[in-house]
Amino acid sequence: MGVNRGRQSFQHPGPTNIPERVLRAMDRAQIDYTSVEFQNTLSECQEKLGHVFKTEHAVITYAASGHGAWEAALANVTSPGDLILVVQSGFFSEKWSGFAEGLGLKTETLETDWRTAADPAQLEERLRRDTDHTIKAVMLVHNETSTGVVNDCAEIRAAMDRAGHPALYLIDAISSLACFDVNMDEWRADVVVAGSQKGLMMPVGLSFTGVSAKAIEASQNATTPRSYWDWRRLLTGMRQTSFHGTQPVTLIFGLHEALMMIEEEGLDQIFKRHNILAEATRRAATIWSENDGPQIVATNIKSRSDTVTALLMPDGYDADEVRRIALEHFNVCLAPGLAGLKGRIFRIGHMGDLNASMMLGALASCEAALEIVGVPYGKGGINAAMTYLVSAAGAEASLGSIDESVSPIRKSA
Amino acid sequence: MGVNRGRQSFQHPGPTNIPERVLRAMDRAQIDYTSVEFQNTLSECQEKLGHVFKTEHAVITYAASGHGAWEAALANVTSPGDLILVVQSGFFSEKWSGFAEGLGLKTETLETDWRTAADPAQLEERLRRDTDHTIKAVMLVHNETSTGVVNDCAEIRAAMDRAGHPALYLIDAISSLACFDVNMDEWRADVVVAGSQKGLMMPVGLSFTGVSAKAIEASQNATTPRSYWDWRRLLTGMRQTSFHGTQPVTLIFGLHEALMMIEEEGLDQIFKRHNILAEATRRAATIWSENDGPQIVATNIKSRSDTVTALLMPDGYDADEVRRIALEHFNVCLAPGLAGLKGRIFRIGHMGDLNASMMLGALASCEAALEIVGVPYGKGGINAAMTYLVSAAGAEASLGSIDESVSPIRKSA
Amino acid sequence: MGVNRGRQSFQHPGPTNIPERVLRAMDRAQIDYTSVEFQNTLSECQEKLGHVFKTEHAVITYAASGHGAWEAALANVTSPGDLILVVQSGFFSEKWSGFAEGLGLKTETLETDWRTAADPAQLEERLRRDTDHTIKAVMLVHNETSTGVVNDCAEIRAAMDRAGHPALYLIDAISSLACFDVNMDEWRADVVVAGSQKGLMMPVGLSFTGVSAKAIEASQNATTPRSYWDWRRLLTGMRQTSFHGTQPVTLIFGLHEALMMIEEEGLDQIFKRHNILAEATRRAATIWSENDGPQIVATNIKSRSDTVTALLMPDGYDADEVRRIALEHFNVCLAPGLAGLKGRIFRIGHMGDLNASMMLGALASCEAALEIVGVPYGKGGINAAMTYLVSAAGAEASLGSIDESVSPIRKSA
Amino acid sequence: MGVNRGRQSFQHPGPTNIPERVLRAMDRAQIDYTSVEFQNTLSECQEKLGHVFKTEHAVITYAASGHGAWEAALANVTSPGDLILVVQSGFFSEKWSGFAEGLGLKTETLETDWRTAADPAQLEERLRRDTDHTIKAVMLVHNETSTGVVNDCAEIRAAMDRAGHPALYLIDAISSLACFDVNMDEWRADVVVAGSQKGLMMPVGLSFTGVSAKAIEASQNATTPRSYWDWRRLLTGMRQTSFHGTQPVTLIFGLHEALMMIEEEGLDQIFKRHNILAEATRRAATIWSENDGPQIVATNIKSRSDTVTALLMPDGYDADEVRRIALEHFNVCLAPGLAGLKGRIFRIGHMGDLNASMMLGALASCEAALEIVGVPYGKGGINAAMTYLVSAAGAEASLGSIDESVSPIRKSA
Repeated sequence: MGVNRGRQSFQHPGPTNIPERVLRAMDRAQIDYTSVEFQNTLSECQEKLGHVFKTEHAVITYAASGHGAWEAALANVTSPGDLILVVQSGFFSEKWSGFAEGLGLKTETLETDWRTAADPAQLEERLRRDTDHTIKAVMLVHNETSTGVVNDCAEIRAAMDRAGHPALYLIDAISSLACFDVNMDEWRADVVVAGSQKGLMMPVGLSFTGVSAKAIEASQNATTPRSYWDWRRLLTGMRQTSFHGTQPVTLIFGLHEALMMIEEEGLDQIFKRHNILAEATRRAATIWSENDGPQIVATNIKSRSDTVTALLMPDGYDADEVRRIALEHFNVCLAPGLAGLKGRIFRIGHMGDLNASMMLGALASCEAALEIVGVPYGKGGINAAMTYLVSAAGAEASLGSIDESVSPIRKSA
Repeated sequence: MGVNRGRQSFQHPGPTNIPERVLRAMDRAQIDYTSVEFQNTLSECQEKLGHVFKTEHAVITYAASGHGAWEAALANVTSPGDLILVVQSGFFSEKWSGFAEGLGLKTETLETDWRTAADPAQLEERLRRDTDHTIKAVMLVHNETSTGVVNDCAEIRAAMDRAGHPALYLIDAISSLACFDVNMDEWRADVVVAGSQKGLMMPVGLSFTGVSAKAIEASQNATTPRSYWDWRRLLTGMRQTSFHGTQPVTLIFGLHEALMMIEEEGLDQIFKRHNILAEATRRAATIWSENDGPQIVATNIKSRSDTVTALLMPDGYDADEVRRIALEHFNVCLAPGLAGLKGRIFRIGHMGDLNASMMLGALASCEAALEIVGVPYGKGGINAAMTYLVSAAGAEASLGSIDESVSPIRKSA
Repeated sequence: MGVNRGRQSFQHPGPTNIPERVLRAMDRAQIDYTSVEFQNTLSECQEKLGHVFKTEHAVITYAASGHGAWEAALANVTSPGDLILVVQSGFFSEKWSGFAEGLGLKTETLETDWRTAADPAQLEERLRRDTDHTIKAVMLVHNETSTGVVNDCAEIRAAMDRAGHPALYLIDAISSLACFDVNMDEWRADVVVAGSQKGLMMPVGLSFTGVSAKAIEASQNATTPRSYWDWRRLLTGMRQTSFHGTQPVTLIFGLHEALMMIEEEGLDQIFKRHNILAEATRRAATIWSENDGPQIVATNIKSRSDTVTALLMPDGYDADEVRRIALEHFNVCLAPGLAGLKGRIFRIGHMGDLNASMMLGALASCEAALEIVGVPYGKGGINAAMTYLVSAAGAEASLGSIDESVSPIRKSA
Repeated sequence: MGVNRGRQSFQHPGPTNIPERVLRAMDRAQIDYTSVEFQNTLSECQEKLGHVFKTEHAVITYAASGHGAWEAALANVTSPGDLILVVQSGFFSEKWSGFAEGLGLKTETLETDWRTAADPAQLEERLRRDTDHTIKAVMLVHNETSTGVVNDCAEIRAAMDRAGHPALYLIDAISSLACFDVNMDEWRADVVVAGSQKGLMMPVGLSFTGVSAKAIEASQNATTPRSYWDWRRLLTGMRQTSFHGTQPVTLIFGLHEALMMIEEEGLDQIFKRHNILAEATRRAATIWSENDGPQIVATNIKSRSDTVTALLMPDGYDADEVRRIALEHFNVCLAPGLAGLKGRIFRIGHMGDLNASMMLGALASCEAALEIVGVPYGKGGINAAMTYLVSAAGAEASLGSIDESVSPIRKSA
């Protein structure tokens, strides 16, 4: 089968499918970034970003990948030697923690087995023990992209409240924002980090920090050296009024279009769509897990992500072989396991610009790839996904019967 | 489910999916069409078109839709009052026949029930009776897009040969060219008509006639009035050297890229890919036809098209309701029945820039739509398609087992 | 100088510069042409085309180049042997006349020297002599693209009226529509022909006929064989409701965007813009014509076109050498002389998506190319163009004086 | 004059005109960044970047604007409290200096009047006085975009050598790279900073540091906190093998295409083209400066930039009014004065994807805008530019005379 023909089914958990409208919005000549037209575009982006973050506070935009916003989140509110409590979730929580260390911060990690969500009670207990408030900030990855495990940001907030601890609350919402609910203000999050290439349906290139008043206050006294990320250089009062150097005109054009599309669909509908497509994926994966087949990495049903499902291969089977076959025979791109998980898991992204037909194509291909590779699995995952989607379509359907028979074929049949 | 999000699964039998590369090739500034650069591009297109038509003769390009090339095919080789023998196949053979009448020609139709291919014996018999060779030309639609029935051009040629009749042989290959085998020279076809928006993966806008030496000779004496279509104005010797007026620069850029892609994949591989995806569709449809479900319109297995499969609804069920549900819940665009077939059939296009994942997504969505609408059907069409595709993947697959277990998850599991 | 770097200054009189917005509008996936979305797009195009043609009557769209619409204009209102009176203007009037002959019509030509506009008195005289009304139609090219000579459609209409002749009035407005005034209904034109690649700022691919009630009536009895162009197949009452075969989705997307841009700018402003840029060109060319330099082909000032200026070289100098130098050293594409005019003239297109800076760049390059080639010419054409544009900017300008001197440079200066 | 019609003449000194090819290269679907295809693309970019920087050492790519690379250049080779010697040139040298301070470094500035290039003797003298080598690094902006003044990097290197000082040599080549000569290895520069949006003809989004072996060695012991910019996380040996997080697929596609175009034209030809267009601009500006007109900011002829020319207004005249008129009447975008220079100067960018016709259009418009605003100026700047370009075309031109006179117009003339 010619693998390079037709549209690739791109089931990555970031970058994700970029809609035609967004690609085309970026495909235009530069304009003066000091012009009224561009400044209005930028202002609208800032306002719409606030809606997506569900915050009244500033959302600061950087020309950088999401890891840049990680550094911004840390550098602005800390001083060398500050202790950061890292709620472990997987590859990305570890990497973010490593960024903290690179900035000269101390870190302490609340460990998990990477398959279950963070335990609020464990966090509460640790914070209670920190009676002199040495812990400067709690760092949490909302949706761990490497495993498909979701942490409950509201429960973590509640645990911090119960412990009465004043630590700043830093959340990486990179692979959850604009896919399922991120509610910065309700969670009283102090810094929420996001990137352009996931639910925002953009290329890599922009990243963001939503910043609370408490975070901005902290930034006044924070002494970690910084310039590019420095909120003090970017904010006037509570609003970003400055970029460093030339503004990223092309990327802002794309962001604006993406935010328009998000507004048009509506966050609630977007969340519902992601949930339905994720649930269809999980229904399929649950069937596949029978007969000693691949297991969903996230062991706890309520911690399974609506944006990515990671599947752990049975012993002796190579996840990358499944990926290779899916790619070569079906033109489906599945994501690999990261670092030590390489070959052990594959990941099905289901975030961003995606619909039911695309999802079914990917799932059917995935099931066929399991068959071709010879991995043990339970058959009929695709049917479970279809059955679920039929039920999700629900009451909207009507039986379409018509009375007349006017077709020549009908007559001749 | 938000229907406008994600890439639409566009299962039309024309226009078809236009590859990114082709869209981008057309998305550029105009250049002087008298420049060497453009003239080289045009020459390469002509040469590559010859390979696709499998002809040593000229393939003439018009700025027009396929119906324009229909008229060109007729106008250049006929004189008013000439008799054309129309091999009926469905909506498009009738429409082409109507074009002949509009040009002042007489037509006689060899009828079918629209569900079976043309009968070579019937044609042979009619031609044998035409002892004074009143019949000027035989007109055949290779692949009847309205029904998914394929005619056998080689057998029709053989029938004409057996009858010893000198009629010109005009073939509409609009929805077969570059999808399954069109062999102009082997069939000794005199005019082969094609359009840009099917297997050539382009927008509507260009159409083509491959023209034999016999056709060109006939054009010298043909008196049907014509200017725009007139080969004498376009050809120098056996090669097109002229366009009417401004050359279609943008469309030629797209055509060139599409022909490059065809060359890269190779016609044999393209035909194989279409056949496999079509067969997957037929396997699904055959299962669906159980339990008094929708029937494949083409009754004869060997006459089923590799580019479109039309399904005839059971009595009392509206094909357009299935299409509506597929579109609204799965973002799959299926094609309607044309004219009198509207509501009676729906058509699944499987031509052009398509792969296995796209096909599976469409078929799964289609099966789910049948379920939602409440049409009787046999369940498991999607599984039959998958099983077939697994077998088609064949010996290429290898069992991917690995020895080591290095993943943290594995260890902690 | 690297000629292929930077944006080419494309001063062709068709195809013309296609705006980014139009290119991008065409650069998207296909949609179902039977969908409500597409049908609405098409309806809006038809309505907006009516505004551009200034007609209450139907404007019919073809998938074809402008020469296709030429044939449509003739084939629908004539019968074999009808006499057409051709008002000669240049290459294109001759070519259109040739199309009439190809359709089996008789033609008679009112000759000019190709450098002056059609003479209404000459036409009136000829029509008066046609006492039995043998002349079926008068055929006029509004703006002769090959020479830059404009004919006065209103005066031609008045001459026909004075002669009391019932001939149909066929106008080719291909290179005038949406550039300077075309007023189909005021002129009581019966068929107005246009193409997409000029003032409509589109690629070649669509063409149009505006058709009066009288033309539609004539089409009922016209016997010239036709199918593709046949209004009877395309119109329901007075409105186009049908296309032949697959609708040209991509081109219609582009047309819609172009018509939106035309509406946004407004026809009056578009005409003014073309007039100013053309006048700047003429001011430059008038200076160049001094010292036995190149002469504007159109001898009569009031017949000089607002969309193209053709310059006749002094004896012994090759226009194509000027074009070559302009291209190689300045990346300016000028248009060649057509047919017998090749080498004798070059043409500066100034139509479509063009502004003052683009025009000045082309004119300065053109003057420099004359210098390099060594053609005799009057120096300072560019200055005349600038002076004119300064005056055209007129009262809008204000002297910008500021009071303060805050710059470090000012201080240090 | 409708200002929004036609292509804007975008004479910004960054971002610059992005070629169609580069925009289109970015306008495509995402691919797996771990794929062989993407990794090859990335490797090719790294190799080609080395050629452009003229270095055998690594060029590291960041997802960030040029200011990010500023920070990277400083953070990787310094420790808190280190002294940096800033060679002042204008707005950007001051801003970079401010970045150094944000990172906790001490700075000392060698002052200029912003209109003359850095004085090597002054630098040599200061370095000689630094007998205990307190100065850690010398920081120089090669081409000061805010004023159009160029510093001589080779002479600065020679001064450092003469002083025998071991300071690191940090160069901002943001607005010179790929426009005029940057020769990292010959200058023994330790860090060369660049951005994507200038000579690389890309949007803002990527930036770069070329890093010498000495710089990499310095980075081993540098203690300025850093993660995102940290070379140790990005380099394996002397080569970048890592990006932070998701790789910037779309921007790398664009970069690859831009680097291909640079290779096709060749650096020498690119430098020559920039020099010619800059010289044309300077010839025009020199004429304008007569009659108390605007003065070129760079007072010393040999320090005038080949990428941007800044013009200082006569007292009492507002540069932004000239910019407004150029924009509104000619659709030419000129760049404003930055910070304290706002209103005092305007800047004509002449870098990147630019040709002679574009330049002439901008210069003619600029001269016309001076006239409209009523600023005193010397007339005929455009002619001086044209004369220069004619001479630059030089021996390549040939007189094009032809013998025959075959045109109908010639005959009738």
